[in-house]
Amino acid sequence: MDIEEFKRNREALHKKVMDLAGKNMKTFHHLDWKVYEPGALDKKTKQMLGLVASMVLRCDDCIAYHLTRCAEEGVSSGELEEAMTVAVMVGGSIIIPHLRRAVKVWEALGNTVKETEEKK
Amino acid sequence: MDIEEFKRNREALHKKVMDLAGKNMKTFHHLDWKVYEPGALDKKTKQMLGLVASMVLRCDDCIAYHLTRCAEEGVSSGELEEAMTVAVMVGGSIIIPHLRRAVKVWEALGNTVKETEEKK
Amino acid sequence: MDIEEFKRNREALHKKVMDLAGKNMKTFHHLDWKVYEPGALDKKTKQMLGLVASMVLRCDDCIAYHLTRCAEEGVSSGELEEAMTVAVMVGGSIIIPHLRRAVKVWEALGNTVKETEEKK
Amino acid sequence: MDIEEFKRNREALHKKVMDLAGKNMKTFHHLDWKVYEPGALDKKTKQMLGLVASMVLRCDDCIAYHLTRCAEEGVSSGELEEAMTVAVMVGGSIIIPHLRRAVKVWEALGNTVKETEEKK
Amino acid sequence: MDIEEFKRNREALHKKVMDLAGKNMKTFHHLDWKVYEPGALDKKTKQMLGLVASMVLRCDDCIAYHLTRCAEEGVSSGELEEAMTVAVMVGGSIIIPHLRRAVKVWEALGNTVKETEEKK
Amino acid sequence: MDIEEFKRNREALHKKVMDLAGKNMKTFHHLDWKVYEPGALDKKTKQMLGLVASMVLRCDDCIAYHLTRCAEEGVSSGELEEAMTVAVMVGGSIIIPHLRRAVKVWEALGNTVKETEEKK
Repeated sequence: MDIEEFKRNREALHKKVMDLAGKNMKTFHHLDWKVYEPGALDKKTKQMLGLVASMVLRCDDCIAYHLTRCAEEGVSSGELEEAMTVAVMVGGSIIIPHLRRAVKVWEALGNTVKETEEKK
Repeated sequence: MDIEEFKRNREALHKKVMDLAGKNMKTFHHLDWKVYEPGALDKKTKQMLGLVASMVLRCDDCIAYHLTRCAEEGVSSGELEEAMTVAVMVGGSIIIPHLRRAVKVWEALGNTVKETEEKK
Repeated sequence: MDIEEFKRNREALHKKVMDLAGKNMKTFHHLDWKVYEPGALDKKTKQMLGLVASMVLRCDDCIAYHLTRCAEEGVSSGELEEAMTVAVMVGGSIIIPHLRRAVKVWEALGNTVKETEEKK
Repeated sequence: MDIEEFKRNREALHKKVMDLAGKNMKTFHHLDWKVYEPGALDKKTKQMLGLVASMVLRCDDCIAYHLTRCAEEGVSSGELEEAMTVAVMVGGSIIIPHLRRAVKVWEALGNTVKETEEKK
Repeated sequence: MDIEEFKRNREALHKKVMDLAGKNMKTFHHLDWKVYEPGALDKKTKQMLGLVASMVLRCDDCIAYHLTRCAEEGVSSGELEEAMTVAVMVGGSIIIPHLRRAVKVWEALGNTVKETEEKK
Repeated sequence: MDIEEFKRNREALHKKVMDLAGKNMKTFHHLDWKVYEPGALDKKTKQMLGLVASMVLRCDDCIAYHLTRCAEEGVSSGELEEAMTVAVMVGGSIIIPHLRRAVKVWEALGNTVKETEEKK
């Protein structure tokens, strides 16, 4: 999992979508950015909401994106683990393969996946 | 929407499930309660995660349950509105009928759905 | 199935949602209306697209809404039957209970569900 | 939950669907009956497969139908409980409200939901 | 994205499925072809219905298949963009990664993704 | 499709998940193993239930896993074909790409996909 390559590919394809996109599609994409802006809830909470939604709907690209944003907003490995446990509980064992790939991304983002014993 | 009747029906049926349930089913139900206990994340955040997961997976009963818990944990109408906006954005317009019923439940829980103008 | 009551309830709850809604939620709802406006595709085709999407995602309220719009745009029972057959084929037998309710709505909208033999 | 009324409503709406249905829709419905006929797998196993598929896809009508067929094919409460536990495990806690309603149907079908202690 | 390779792989695996398939599975596959034949609705409309259904259910292979068929039936980039906007609106931002890959396929099929300004 | 490589990757990522996992996540994973243990239903039936659930929810990794377990429990190609036909019928043509990949895995597991004519 190369995070930088993921970001580059994502950006290149996004450009193609914008080239084709009409006004409504553009508003939709703009809105998709705006709903994660801070308001009554802060950025970090919103990114965790986006992550859990992406996990239960099982979209690897969406999960990878929200993981990069969670890392940027300072979500700790312990917080992430609990958010992902909620996702797996609600969505079932069908989420597990996505969870495995998510943990790989989380590690690629420079986070430790080795929690200290006392935290558990 | 009568919240107390919702809770009574839910409890009565839960008892029947527990009567039938074997050990694994019982562990599953116990775990479904434990993952929302506070840890690295507090109860309020976890309930919002559960709500958003329930909304994108479109389960009215689960949404109603997490709304009652969100109210108990002190989620404000403004915070709720932003969490539900993330859910609708990720899950699409197919979520809207569930959103309508959710707002009805939120009001039945004694919350105002009339935000002040300056908050928006 | 009382179509007028369905519309009144829908409208009353929509008002409550708008009372709670912040700016992003309002834009989302506005966009949900705009994407069905005619452009390269006409209203009738767009309503059938919305219907099929609602059927495979299995949302009865969304199906009922798009059926009322399909009727307004002049979709015939024969065209509807073929659009719904595509939905059932893609989405599987899990769609059948929604199909049954859809046919009931279609009839309540004043359409005949009795096709002439030669059409089949 | 009145099983006989469920069956009558289902049958009445099925007739309407067949009145509207073209040839492909009719073949689809016929096929939906044929795949549960015994072959390499017996009827009982196939009905449990249909039940678990209906549970993870969360369709109450489909669950109720397969429960009536499971009862007819002699599925025991113990077997049912294990099949439903697999469904809940794979599909997650979002299945629980459907599980509750399923247990109500199972009881309405004349089955006991009180397993003996030693079975667990 | 090599369209010809996509088609070859698809065909090779289809052959294996048919080797294993019993009579019901074969009828199902035949029906999957028949429902897109013209009738009350033309081929082009049916392919757009199939595309939107595939997008909201988020199946990349199904999307790629219907895109090749849409191109063959003369769907324009403008029409495609509006059909995809309906899909994204109904299904939410979780569809966006599939949209990105769809636009790549559409371009590989020889279509322009650069709409003229006045069309928007 | 290299089955041994699939198993190795799966195991390596599972280890990372367990390194990060708290107590609830660990219980969830343990339970995911226990529900397939024999009880009122035997291992073979439970694996077919897990397979059909994985197919209708369209998770390739889960399908591949249950196929390896089905093969170990002595599911025949004829039994598998009928279980998969139920899955495709319930879940629709959207399952077909997953079916194609499943048949490839089944063959890689050393099974024949060429049924004798009289079996059909």
